[in-house]
Amino acid sequence: MAGLLVEPVARLIEAFARLPGIGPKTAQRLTYHLLRAADTEARSLAAALVDVRDKVVFCERCFNISDAPLCAICLDGGRDVRRLCIVEEPLDVLAIERTAEFRGLYHVLHGAISPIDGIGPDRLKIRELLARVDTAHAEGSPFEEVILATNPTLEGEATAMYLDERLDGHVGAVTRIARGIPVGGDLEYADEVTLIRALQGRRALGDRSR
Amino acid sequence: MAGLLVEPVARLIEAFARLPGIGPKTAQRLTYHLLRAADTEARSLAAALVDVRDKVVFCERCFNISDAPLCAICLDGGRDVRRLCIVEEPLDVLAIERTAEFRGLYHVLHGAISPIDGIGPDRLKIRELLARVDTAHAEGSPFEEVILATNPTLEGEATAMYLDERLDGHVGAVTRIARGIPVGGDLEYADEVTLIRALQGRRALGDRSR
Repeated sequence: MAGLLVEPVARLIEAFARLPGIGPKTAQRLTYHLLRAADTEARSLAAALVDVRDKVVFCERCFNISDAPLCAICLDGGRDVRRLCIVEEPLDVLAIERTAEFRGLYHVLHGAISPIDGIGPDRLKIRELLARVDTAHAEGSPFEEVILATNPTLEGEATAMYLDERLDGHVGAVTRIARGIPVGGDLEYADEVTLIRALQGRRALGDRSR
Repeated sequence: MAGLLVEPVARLIEAFARLPGIGPKTAQRLTYHLLRAADTEARSLAAALVDVRDKVVFCERCFNISDAPLCAICLDGGRDVRRLCIVEEPLDVLAIERTAEFRGLYHVLHGAISPIDGIGPDRLKIRELLARVDTAHAEGSPFEEVILATNPTLEGEATAMYLDERLDGHVGAVTRIARGIPVGGDLEYADEVTLIRALQGRRALGDRSR
């Protein structure tokens, strides 16, 4: 069988299959698609891959993606610099920005604490976060609120708990995003833990305080 | 929002999203993965993409993928040159080779007839197939059997019917792969058409003729 696969084809299939969520079958299909598609399709994908590695960096302050030392959000003078939202990934920044509900700054951890995967706090941008918080404090403009927007997974919750402990006393308040039944969701199909969180997080009907 | 996405990142997401079966969310995830992965991962994928376009061609005879004018199967002296198996895609050749049940030659159509998508016989490697069949005939070694192994879809069946008509009289026999309940499948969940095909294709229990 191996002899049947022309070497460059085998190598492209392997390269695709190394990507997360791409199985060997999908890798094959993508490869054959690019073999038959217009020449520019494969070449523009190749160029985009090289470009992303050559031109994209992480923001020195918040570790969001950027093409300059500081990212567009950190450079934006119109943001509320007293509020800081902690997320796991740059994609989470995009998701929150899409809501237009938050106008503060971000800090991207680039992961979550996961002892099983050998990811401790030192593997994430936590040291940089604590330094950032302390600098703001020392400069007389401490963060009023740090919102822990890590995922409501085991790892995300562990990270939030860890950060809550480390940030306590260094910032005005530490908050956690609400976990509950998603809008449009169905109680009947909600898992137990989500339902418990939804009950624990219940608020008076008139409560529009936050 | 658009301003938030660094341009090379946006371009890579777009390039991924153009691939079949890759939605915008997956394209985002792949892009961010490559941003954080080792530098070699993105660069080796880029190199593999360029290589595949530079070094891979289609076999002049059967249109399977190849790195030489004729593919490994066409060049293999041990194959049964009297049997020809017609498939839609190069991936189908791999799938059949994996079974080790067929030792003949192939002809890859590179698609199936689909009037809805504007794909007529002239868009496929059918002219080349008919020429190949006629050449074999003229050389005194006509194909004994042509196996139509196009997919059991509307398009694959239409293609098989078309080819059956065109090949009739030019080759010893034209056969079609069996359609029926897949091994390990369940009659209860089989669709009606498959069940009809399974009944129509029934054989005597002792029949091991083919």
